[in-house]
Amino acid sequence: MIYFRSDYSQGAHPKVLEALTKTNFEHTDGYGMDVHCSHAADMVRDLVGLPDAAVHMMIGGTPCNVTVIAAALRPYESVIAARSGHIYFHETGAVEGTGHRIVAMEGVNGKLTPELVDKAFEEYEDEHTPKPGMVYLSQPTEIGSIYSKAEMTALAEKCKEKGLFLYVDGARMGTAITCAANDLSLPELAQLADAFYIGGTKNGALFGEALVIRNKAMDDHFRWMIKRQCGLLAKGRLIGVQFEALLEGGMNSVYFAIASHANRLAEKLRNGLASMGIGFFSDSPTNQIFPILPAKVVEELEKDFFFYRWAPEKDGMIPVRLVTAWGTEEAHVDALLEKTAALMHQSEKKN
Amino acid sequence: MIYFRSDYSQGAHPKVLEALTKTNFEHTDGYGMDVHCSHAADMVRDLVGLPDAAVHMMIGGTPCNVTVIAAALRPYESVIAARSGHIYFHETGAVEGTGHRIVAMEGVNGKLTPELVDKAFEEYEDEHTPKPGMVYLSQPTEIGSIYSKAEMTALAEKCKEKGLFLYVDGARMGTAITCAANDLSLPELAQLADAFYIGGTKNGALFGEALVIRNKAMDDHFRWMIKRQCGLLAKGRLIGVQFEALLEGGMNSVYFAIASHANRLAEKLRNGLASMGIGFFSDSPTNQIFPILPAKVVEELEKDFFFYRWAPEKDGMIPVRLVTAWGTEEAHVDALLEKTAALMHQSEKKN
Amino acid sequence: MIYFRSDYSQGAHPKVLEALTKTNFEHTDGYGMDVHCSHAADMVRDLVGLPDAAVHMMIGGTPCNVTVIAAALRPYESVIAARSGHIYFHETGAVEGTGHRIVAMEGVNGKLTPELVDKAFEEYEDEHTPKPGMVYLSQPTEIGSIYSKAEMTALAEKCKEKGLFLYVDGARMGTAITCAANDLSLPELAQLADAFYIGGTKNGALFGEALVIRNKAMDDHFRWMIKRQCGLLAKGRLIGVQFEALLEGGMNSVYFAIASHANRLAEKLRNGLASMGIGFFSDSPTNQIFPILPAKVVEELEKDFFFYRWAPEKDGMIPVRLVTAWGTEEAHVDALLEKTAALMHQSEKKN
Amino acid sequence: MIYFRSDYSQGAHPKVLEALTKTNFEHTDGYGMDVHCSHAADMVRDLVGLPDAAVHMMIGGTPCNVTVIAAALRPYESVIAARSGHIYFHETGAVEGTGHRIVAMEGVNGKLTPELVDKAFEEYEDEHTPKPGMVYLSQPTEIGSIYSKAEMTALAEKCKEKGLFLYVDGARMGTAITCAANDLSLPELAQLADAFYIGGTKNGALFGEALVIRNKAMDDHFRWMIKRQCGLLAKGRLIGVQFEALLEGGMNSVYFAIASHANRLAEKLRNGLASMGIGFFSDSPTNQIFPILPAKVVEELEKDFFFYRWAPEKDGMIPVRLVTAWGTEEAHVDALLEKTAALMHQSEKKN
Repeated sequence: MIYFRSDYSQGAHPKVLEALTKTNFEHTDGYGMDVHCSHAADMVRDLVGLPDAAVHMMIGGTPCNVTVIAAALRPYESVIAARSGHIYFHETGAVEGTGHRIVAMEGVNGKLTPELVDKAFEEYEDEHTPKPGMVYLSQPTEIGSIYSKAEMTALAEKCKEKGLFLYVDGARMGTAITCAANDLSLPELAQLADAFYIGGTKNGALFGEALVIRNKAMDDHFRWMIKRQCGLLAKGRLIGVQFEALLEGGMNSVYFAIASHANRLAEKLRNGLASMGIGFFSDSPTNQIFPILPAKVVEELEKDFFFYRWAPEKDGMIPVRLVTAWGTEEAHVDALLEKTAALMHQSEKKN
Repeated sequence: MIYFRSDYSQGAHPKVLEALTKTNFEHTDGYGMDVHCSHAADMVRDLVGLPDAAVHMMIGGTPCNVTVIAAALRPYESVIAARSGHIYFHETGAVEGTGHRIVAMEGVNGKLTPELVDKAFEEYEDEHTPKPGMVYLSQPTEIGSIYSKAEMTALAEKCKEKGLFLYVDGARMGTAITCAANDLSLPELAQLADAFYIGGTKNGALFGEALVIRNKAMDDHFRWMIKRQCGLLAKGRLIGVQFEALLEGGMNSVYFAIASHANRLAEKLRNGLASMGIGFFSDSPTNQIFPILPAKVVEELEKDFFFYRWAPEKDGMIPVRLVTAWGTEEAHVDALLEKTAALMHQSEKKN
Repeated sequence: MIYFRSDYSQGAHPKVLEALTKTNFEHTDGYGMDVHCSHAADMVRDLVGLPDAAVHMMIGGTPCNVTVIAAALRPYESVIAARSGHIYFHETGAVEGTGHRIVAMEGVNGKLTPELVDKAFEEYEDEHTPKPGMVYLSQPTEIGSIYSKAEMTALAEKCKEKGLFLYVDGARMGTAITCAANDLSLPELAQLADAFYIGGTKNGALFGEALVIRNKAMDDHFRWMIKRQCGLLAKGRLIGVQFEALLEGGMNSVYFAIASHANRLAEKLRNGLASMGIGFFSDSPTNQIFPILPAKVVEELEKDFFFYRWAPEKDGMIPVRLVTAWGTEEAHVDALLEKTAALMHQSEKKN
Repeated sequence: MIYFRSDYSQGAHPKVLEALTKTNFEHTDGYGMDVHCSHAADMVRDLVGLPDAAVHMMIGGTPCNVTVIAAALRPYESVIAARSGHIYFHETGAVEGTGHRIVAMEGVNGKLTPELVDKAFEEYEDEHTPKPGMVYLSQPTEIGSIYSKAEMTALAEKCKEKGLFLYVDGARMGTAITCAANDLSLPELAQLADAFYIGGTKNGALFGEALVIRNKAMDDHFRWMIKRQCGLLAKGRLIGVQFEALLEGGMNSVYFAIASHANRLAEKLRNGLASMGIGFFSDSPTNQIFPILPAKVVEELEKDFFFYRWAPEKDGMIPVRLVTAWGTEEAHVDALLEKTAALMHQSEKKN
């Protein structure tokens, strides 16, 4: 069986395990108050060009999103997100669990736009309605698309106009930064967003995300908030150690190398499938692609390959999700393309 | 100035004030543990044909909705509502404040349908998504429309199929029950809904709603929930006294008489306006109607009449809301129709 | 049966009902945006000497306390209170329901002290512990005692030192201000507290409390918070109308006259019982007194008088609560003293 | 520098890292739906003798406690705990953050008793007070003491009598089970508690706790609750892999061997210090001991040893906390004893 299941189906990149093993017997303070977290935070500040930003080592994406939102918003405030956004679609109402509405908008290719932000405000009147206080978006989005520099800038300006925080979920930030279509660098993003995170879990770490808060108004007693939201790891240094290993060398680090690797193999898949006349569910230049395949082809592929069906069958076609990651090998991609080509050929002959 | 502002812009029907005055010097237990609340609850049970139902005297509509939802749902559950539903549109995120998502669906003429409930479930997968636990709807809706017996029955069946509580917000229940188009009696509704309330605030009381809980699973320690949600009135008997006054005589009581009165005058308005070729924003047989008028006509009417614009001007037309209530006089209606007719005449001549 | 049950066991002072009746047919805006609320707020500002304070007409004491706390505290903050404080002892965890701990301290005669505030801080360390953000106290306390000017000043200074809001629950403020032992005027209190309320429910109103917020940091979007916490009354003007009636004349108003009346009768009771050698559970100069009576005496008194036992029988003695209010008559007090004297006499003879 | 800082100041026991490395390249399902979590859960069920119990692999102690409490309690319910209990003292109000009061009782040697549970109920009356729904306790406690079989049985009976869930925080369960003074086996504990966890973080894991829920009423949609409370790890198998490594061999596993090791060294420390006439802050037979030392001695020890002061200096004496763990070496203990003996000798000579 060959896996295009997800980018968190294996353990960690070997460099990460090596670093954990090397530092294993050190005694450090708990809860992230250690030299590794401190050093990793400095590396992050360098990388994003924000020498004064607060950087917190977070245990995972959902705790990061929920803690940021719970810390930043006043009780009567809501957060605007795409309906396909992770906080709306895959966090079991954790944001609402902290008392805040998510105003969920149908995104365009998974993305919010300034117009959608304006539309969200149509639901806002006065003290009888929750007041939008933040825009949440993901770079790349949950369906692989990315915001261009122009798009992100326009959103940041709209947020300023409306008095909203702009928060970017970077669970797969590595693949956004390194994909061919991208024109928005990390330092540029860091100037536009009030806060964002650089995801480790989906790019080579066992777990852990590096949260960057540029806007001090969002950082009030943030460690109290992390603890209250149950996200303060006793051996917090584990996250610091992992990010030290992943980010050493900055833009030339393992972190970006493995994201590039995943992107390159995804692109090969995408181009290969497209050349067979296969269409896609979303326009994704990153490591998740969503080809729409004949049901018969899907069934046959599932015998040798593991991947998820993304939506129910419709008119004999099924959108599936193929994910590449640091552990994906080029031979896997070739095998999938070869078998798909053969199946498509058969399929066409029958029709 | 003549008022079509709302059905809560005056105090109480004189019968209510009379009853409050008459009982004023009685000493009773606090917090609704008194003879008046107990007696009023019996009257409600009789009226709706549920001798075993729990009946709670609630202070207002929002506290009633929020307490019911907070009491009935498990933390991981959501409530399905029309986007125009009061809990979504006019309660400042109070439901989310108790930790629950509202899955807001675009209603059909302000109403939910079994198909919309199915559609809401498309957002539900597994432990990564909040699980719908209740359907919330309003009878009549916030834009005046009503559920027919067939529609309500279909929704109740869908709720049973899906394992959902069905809760009916009856802020304006009186006008639903007494309007000409209605074919769903209170006892019939009471058999379909797991819980519902009969609204006092918008039909002659100073404040207060009578909440009926048929499904015992929703009534666990409900008084604890009322107190925790800040809705337990010290002089709780005030609500009991008001419902005694309003409901005395059952279907022949003041409560239904004044709802009929409001409906009759709304119908006169509706028919009068329709006969002038005026269209409506919603299909409402109850005491709120939403004619769409030329902007010029609206501006002129506003000099003599108080009412709310319901939506922004579009193509020179403005939907407005006209509300009738127990205090509305037939002469008010005649005056409005007369002036509107004159303005429409002028308006047409110009065009 | 003669009632010393509570100060909310009857309806409203006749002046209040009269005002409600007189204004009943007026049409006003809803939700407290009306001339009566606005006028009553001005009267309150005059009375307390804070021309710039925010004044909100609240529906009851618990909604007022809970909304203030939810609005003022950050999620990681707690509120310090006496264990006998209303928010800890009689609000069913409503404060915790908004996510905040109450640090409950054993009070001294029902009161907090600067030393107790310091002691509460012993539980506070760093990000692993909730940070105290407010002191909550009641004037008078739930057991009738009052803070002197010196005591309140010392607490206000301690709050300033520790960076805490000082919030005063004034459910029975009238009896604190008008009792013989008091040396702290309303304008003086208003300079010390960041926020406080003047209670209507327990001093002649049907319901309603006038909340005064001096510290603007506690008033951010407060009406949004009231709505979110379910405390915004549709016919909000009802609270304004009642306070207009109660407070007309300022310190010479009905409000303070009836509080004085209650205090005077409580004092007569207290002196009469004390002269029989009866001891008291608390040192109360206001309208709630807590004599400790032989169980036999209590049982006999209960045949003619309604009052609550305050604690379980111990060594043959029972502390009871006697409450006087605007509706208490001097003859009631005389009757109770007479019967108690007779019973105590018998009781002593037996021993 | 020699460390008696905490039992989570190093990484993981080498067996754990070895297992993580060995399984690193496997592809598994995410979020704990993998073979390792499933296998580890079976091992736990065997170990505790509950073939039908639900076992969840949790990310840490605080997420485990908070999720259990949020899942088990109704909104109006509270949890009874010792004031020194972790949920009250070191979780930043996370439990209150889910809407529940902790009724904090002064423990006896850090422990709850049936009498304290009764005393907690003195705060409970009716719908005006939160209803206790659970007893939370830690085995061993936060100050190292343990519940005997008789004590735990008595508490379990009291819980049954009062209708309370009994939940046991086992962050350091290994040292409770293996200490010389213990007479309560894991299967016995498992029959008494409704739910409990076996802690990994403080006994050799990088992180992770194995939660056992015997009472099905506490397990409703528990994975939904884990996700909502932000505790569902993407690479959930990491916890399963660690527990497989730690628990292989059952009572003869690494898990209990390293707990025994920590206990033995703590006992050596305790006996050594006691023989110098040093007293202790608590009666602890497990791996945390709290000697009370002269301030001068503490200051000198701090030059070579890292440990925490447990409470402020009083009368020249300071209670400190010494923690042993899997990484503590006998030579460390000898060094501490030797230096302390020398310092105590000097100290006595001076006096």
